[in-house]
Amino acid sequence: MKLVALAVFLATAYAPVQALWPLPQHIETGSSTLRLAPTFQITVAGHGVPGDLVAAASRTKQYLFGDKLERLVVGRGAVDAPSFGHAKVLSRLTLSLERGASFASVTSEAQKAPEDRDEAYHLVLPADGSAATITANSTLGLFRGLTTFSQLWYEHDNTIYTVSAPVTIQDAPAYPYRGLMLDTARNYFPVSDIKRTLDAMSWVKINQFHWHIVDSQSFPLEIPGFTDLAQKGAYSSSQVYTPNDVRDIVSYAGERGIDVMIEIDTPGHTAIIAEAHPEYVACPGATPWATYANEPPAGQLRFADAKVTDYIAKLFTAVTAMFPSKLFSTGGDELNTNCYSIDEPTQASLNATGRTLEQALDAFTQETHKALEVKGKTPVVWEEMVLVHNVTLSKETKVLVWISSANVKAVAEKGFQLIHAASDYFYLDCGGGGWVGNNPDGNSWCDPFKTWQHSYSFDPTANLTAEESKLVLGGQHLLWTEQSSPQNLDPIVWPRAASSAELFWSGPGLNISTALPRLHDVAYRMRQRGVNAISLQPEWCALRPGACDLTA
Amino acid sequence: MKLVALAVFLATAYAPVQALWPLPQHIETGSSTLRLAPTFQITVAGHGVPGDLVAAASRTKQYLFGDKLERLVVGRGAVDAPSFGHAKVLSRLTLSLERGASFASVTSEAQKAPEDRDEAYHLVLPADGSAATITANSTLGLFRGLTTFSQLWYEHDNTIYTVSAPVTIQDAPAYPYRGLMLDTARNYFPVSDIKRTLDAMSWVKINQFHWHIVDSQSFPLEIPGFTDLAQKGAYSSSQVYTPNDVRDIVSYAGERGIDVMIEIDTPGHTAIIAEAHPEYVACPGATPWATYANEPPAGQLRFADAKVTDYIAKLFTAVTAMFPSKLFSTGGDELNTNCYSIDEPTQASLNATGRTLEQALDAFTQETHKALEVKGKTPVVWEEMVLVHNVTLSKETKVLVWISSANVKAVAEKGFQLIHAASDYFYLDCGGGGWVGNNPDGNSWCDPFKTWQHSYSFDPTANLTAEESKLVLGGQHLLWTEQSSPQNLDPIVWPRAASSAELFWSGPGLNISTALPRLHDVAYRMRQRGVNAISLQPEWCALRPGACDLTA
Repeated sequence: MKLVALAVFLATAYAPVQALWPLPQHIETGSSTLRLAPTFQITVAGHGVPGDLVAAASRTKQYLFGDKLERLVVGRGAVDAPSFGHAKVLSRLTLSLERGASFASVTSEAQKAPEDRDEAYHLVLPADGSAATITANSTLGLFRGLTTFSQLWYEHDNTIYTVSAPVTIQDAPAYPYRGLMLDTARNYFPVSDIKRTLDAMSWVKINQFHWHIVDSQSFPLEIPGFTDLAQKGAYSSSQVYTPNDVRDIVSYAGERGIDVMIEIDTPGHTAIIAEAHPEYVACPGATPWATYANEPPAGQLRFADAKVTDYIAKLFTAVTAMFPSKLFSTGGDELNTNCYSIDEPTQASLNATGRTLEQALDAFTQETHKALEVKGKTPVVWEEMVLVHNVTLSKETKVLVWISSANVKAVAEKGFQLIHAASDYFYLDCGGGGWVGNNPDGNSWCDPFKTWQHSYSFDPTANLTAEESKLVLGGQHLLWTEQSSPQNLDPIVWPRAASSAELFWSGPGLNISTALPRLHDVAYRMRQRGVNAISLQPEWCALRPGACDLTA
Repeated sequence: MKLVALAVFLATAYAPVQALWPLPQHIETGSSTLRLAPTFQITVAGHGVPGDLVAAASRTKQYLFGDKLERLVVGRGAVDAPSFGHAKVLSRLTLSLERGASFASVTSEAQKAPEDRDEAYHLVLPADGSAATITANSTLGLFRGLTTFSQLWYEHDNTIYTVSAPVTIQDAPAYPYRGLMLDTARNYFPVSDIKRTLDAMSWVKINQFHWHIVDSQSFPLEIPGFTDLAQKGAYSSSQVYTPNDVRDIVSYAGERGIDVMIEIDTPGHTAIIAEAHPEYVACPGATPWATYANEPPAGQLRFADAKVTDYIAKLFTAVTAMFPSKLFSTGGDELNTNCYSIDEPTQASLNATGRTLEQALDAFTQETHKALEVKGKTPVVWEEMVLVHNVTLSKETKVLVWISSANVKAVAEKGFQLIHAASDYFYLDCGGGGWVGNNPDGNSWCDPFKTWQHSYSFDPTANLTAEESKLVLGGQHLLWTEQSSPQNLDPIVWPRAASSAELFWSGPGLNISTALPRLHDVAYRMRQRGVNAISLQPEWCALRPGACDLTA
């Protein structure tokens, strides 16, 4: 047995890990060592190079020389040191657009509608030390190539090197929408936490930040013309996102190839609006809360009231001016009808107009969505708006499937483009125990914990016809923050959220065993860059690919 | 409904939270506001005051003026500000020993055997501004009183105050052993992380650090005379605990009223010893590992070999010199017999001596435990040593029940003192998903996640007779670190581990609903002191005690 075992260790210990994440569509690698010259330069060919691409190239250099990540093998970088002596040296990486393409900022390319984003790139790293090249049809593609390039290198004893030269990569994403959702309403996250998260997202080519910014518990968004909402609804004056903060976050994201989709969840999840406008909210703080809402506190917009509809339409209009994204989520989840049955003003509105609650909801939705569409925004809604309620939606409306992956088929059958966000695969907060008080052994409604392996094994087109499959825009992990805060943001998100990033970039059906060593590399590299990604295994396993597999 | 709801909010929003944790045995509080004088002093009466008590008093002052924690109510400290004007001012806290008691260092009192630790104290905080007092029979009691005193105060607008004066507390722990176990072998934790954890432990009066320092994956302890184990078995030369590190940690703990119990787990969980002494280890790296060990890598001490027994006895002796604690854990969990059935040297030893494997294990245990006992140490073992194996143990041996709380009764029936450490109540790592690779939907063996509420609801004497109940020394939370590392240490431990700290100090049967607001206070205060305790609920709930209860 011992001999067998030792043989296994040697094999795994010295097999170089090709640690790119997400895995490129097509890749060829060699086994030559190539060193990075201390004078290494990244140049961009052509005129009118946008500033955010130049900044990205300079950040890439900082990562190359700053990561100081030793390769994850037994003996770490010392194993590779013997090959440094006769290794060729790389002094230049050149980026250039394909013939006919013209420069636009990474930001503007990232903020296009998902279907219009061009993220494809071609990367060549010769083994002989001659210049490496990244070519693409867009600056966004060049940016993705830079991200890939930075993952090829390790450090040992002040030598920056790769053991996999030459490298040729032809790459493009399987799906145009690869997101991450963060809830900043249950608990507040400073701008610095959001920026750090955006950096980590860009490292694994996530291109969509879905910002669930407000909810029933707090309203931290300062909206010009509607500032009383944050003044009275934020947890404190220091827990507010000002228009400057939003500009800062949106531009920081754009420079990193990420579009910011804001969500103003309506008409449910709006109890906090009562702090500024009690007249607009039905059943605020009604108890028992469980009868009137899925979460405390109860309170929903009186959408049957024309004044409320007009108010929200104007609020949406004001918010569209803050976010350049083509996408705007209006929410629409978990509407509780009991709340309206005890709300006299709503009952009076319905009686006066002779409408049912559903008809009033339809009118509210059409009015508020119209306010978005005149501003060139595409509405995004949670699944209930097409599966539970019978509201009129433009056929461009995108649908977030969250309750269960079993509902994907029904949404597709209605012909809407959809985004995978199912709680049974992509909720980062599941498995941490129920958060409502007075609940001794209660665990979370969406137990168990969603492991990276589980998310990674998701099939985006399960049960869909070829036609329905075309409706899949992509998918994302989500963090609802009833039990999360800046204190555990990194550990609960990373590296798990990288699993959906690869699933929706590289496509489904990849092998979990071969992914694990690459994911270790992602986590270790994130730590070197200041993101607290957790350990997925004992370090002993991280250094021995496969040795801790169930079947090893 | 609205009126009812608003009434609820007002009631909860302005009900002062008595936020002490763990809850004292006897406490009387008033509702007067008392401010802390900027010149506030802590003095210790008597001669020969130990330096670590003086240091503790000075740390307490730093917390009082540095915490800057606003009270957790709607409106935070501003709610209390109106009462500042006519509030009395406290300028002094005096500590003194009861008549007849004499000063010894907090450290030496903390390092006594659990049953000899005197942690009782009497705290009086008058409302009229006259000096507050803490009296006790030991410096350790005075130290616990200081910890309680520091939890009474909040800050608003540079005013340090309490809204609960006068306060009278008579307190002592229900159980003498209140621990936290950390595994530093699966993944390594720098000394600074351990010190920060020791600080947080002391804030909730945990008095025992159970240090599972080595295991099959790595050997980070540098032991004088046995340095090859760490040289060859640590993850790297920078991931080692030197004798200086150990002295540093032990004294840091002692000054904070914490004893450090080291665990050198034998004869299982020892594969890494093969890196330095292959001749001492059976089936190192045997595959499939699942046949030969509960975790990769396989590998266990050849305890049937007299040379190995002698080596471990000498190793234990060397380790006893590094740790002043009366307790020393020798492990004894998860011994795999298949490993020995394929190990020719072990089979040869057994044949040569005519002993069974169990008889050899008994001899090994007696020899190695004798090495501890001559040094005045009490052996501590995992439950298998009394429930699975038939080894001879001194009746002073303490037993850690880990497999299941259902095994507590069986251990008590054998007459051993026991420490509650059951995986079904106190394992902090459960519910995070299985960590072995190639395991798509696998969740952790001890799912689900152990919520603080679940741990808190544990009954330490369930099914025990009055006599057996006397054998319960206390209990602890435990963190096995297959999927933990410095990146998630604070969030996975805090504030959850505070639930067992209160259970074993205040005693069982406390109310979860009234505990939650106090636990929020613990978490918020920890954050102010630099420990990343997570949020247990949305901040909206943290500011409204009871409003987010399931039944509210």
